[in-house]
Amino acid sequence: MSYERKFLDLGHEIPPVAPSVPDGYDFVLYKQIGEILYVSGYGPFWGADIPDEYTGKVGRTLTAIQGYNAARLTAINLLLIVRQAIGSLDNVVQIISVEGLVNCSDDFTDQPSVINGCSDLLVSIFGDQGRHTRIASGANALALDLCVEIKLMLQVRI
Amino acid sequence: MSYERKFLDLGHEIPPVAPSVPDGYDFVLYKQIGEILYVSGYGPFWGADIPDEYTGKVGRTLTAIQGYNAARLTAINLLLIVRQAIGSLDNVVQIISVEGLVNCSDDFTDQPSVINGCSDLLVSIFGDQGRHTRIASGANALALDLCVEIKLMLQVRI
Amino acid sequence: MSYERKFLDLGHEIPPVAPSVPDGYDFVLYKQIGEILYVSGYGPFWGADIPDEYTGKVGRTLTAIQGYNAARLTAINLLLIVRQAIGSLDNVVQIISVEGLVNCSDDFTDQPSVINGCSDLLVSIFGDQGRHTRIASGANALALDLCVEIKLMLQVRI
Repeated sequence: MSYERKFLDLGHEIPPVAPSVPDGYDFVLYKQIGEILYVSGYGPFWGADIPDEYTGKVGRTLTAIQGYNAARLTAINLLLIVRQAIGSLDNVVQIISVEGLVNCSDDFTDQPSVINGCSDLLVSIFGDQGRHTRIASGANALALDLCVEIKLMLQVRI
Repeated sequence: MSYERKFLDLGHEIPPVAPSVPDGYDFVLYKQIGEILYVSGYGPFWGADIPDEYTGKVGRTLTAIQGYNAARLTAINLLLIVRQAIGSLDNVVQIISVEGLVNCSDDFTDQPSVINGCSDLLVSIFGDQGRHTRIASGANALALDLCVEIKLMLQVRI
Repeated sequence: MSYERKFLDLGHEIPPVAPSVPDGYDFVLYKQIGEILYVSGYGPFWGADIPDEYTGKVGRTLTAIQGYNAARLTAINLLLIVRQAIGSLDNVVQIISVEGLVNCSDDFTDQPSVINGCSDLLVSIFGDQGRHTRIASGANALALDLCVEIKLMLQVRI
């Protein structure tokens, strides 16, 4: 089954509105240099909104499972950006790296379980080509009080 | 107008002393691999000094506007490093990515507005080629109590 | 003297068990794209264990010197991963970048001295080819309460 088909099978999990950069901001969501696609840090948005259960600090107001679900939604958003960039997920060769930040309390120590929400989604779509290098770290605060923010780098077909 | 000319038009905003690595440190300010130029994380230094208004935590002792100005000065320092690396800013093809860290209180949630100080400066110099992928996150503490620290990756002419 | 020989001269400092990904995790320790080798964030493990003196927050329960030693052990682990990836350290061309996170108190401001433990080790092995771009930042919390976590990018022979 193609990557694109596997992604579309996520069905109602896919936000109906694609990620975008807010007006007045000078950054872009992706940039491709040769076969490397760089994707900006993104969060668990549902279109332009952020579900309430995905704002706050893991280990204080949110559980690790809520964080996992937020990281999964973030991964879906990142793949929506990849589709904007290269048309179809079938043009992905492999995922190179995931950099995940978890907005958390100072005593939370299970950032890996949270970012697994992203990693597991990527492997469910791309199989072994979805396995990636990774760093999962804590942050004392994130933009808009998002509970996770994740950056992606991929190799794509050119 | 050339990138180099636009940069020089910043005039008195440009620190008179270029960035450097402190004695005894084993890292370098930049490294070029093919057409990719990697620049180390750097802060709002004025030569070897750090202006008082650029140390501390945004959301506690500093405002977001002070953070913005610090990010702008940081961007100027990063471009001074780029000039050391490739001689002239006219050899820049495009900015690939900006990774910005904001030293902030746990309840500060506007990291993007702070890092805009860097992003806006880059676009004022390089236009559309200055647009970049980005992540802007919080940190509970940074070196020397700098309020921001930013890392850059660029594509350059070879 | 070869890089490989210099590394082996570290003798009893080298953990007897190589780094690995815990069961059930979907990431990998390294990924090579052309001549670039990306290594996942890793910490001061001794095989599968973490020495007690390397968990906790620098500036609160740990000193900067303990952090330095943890960063040195982390660098050794990262090089064990590099050897898994490319067989021999003699296939390293140069170290491109080090991204170091220090689990620290909010008032700790000497992240660079901590990450020097990694940088100094790299230069002791690779000489000038070991010098790298770097960012050394604070984090309010890290996985498993590790006191440091470091990510590496290298250029390797192909």
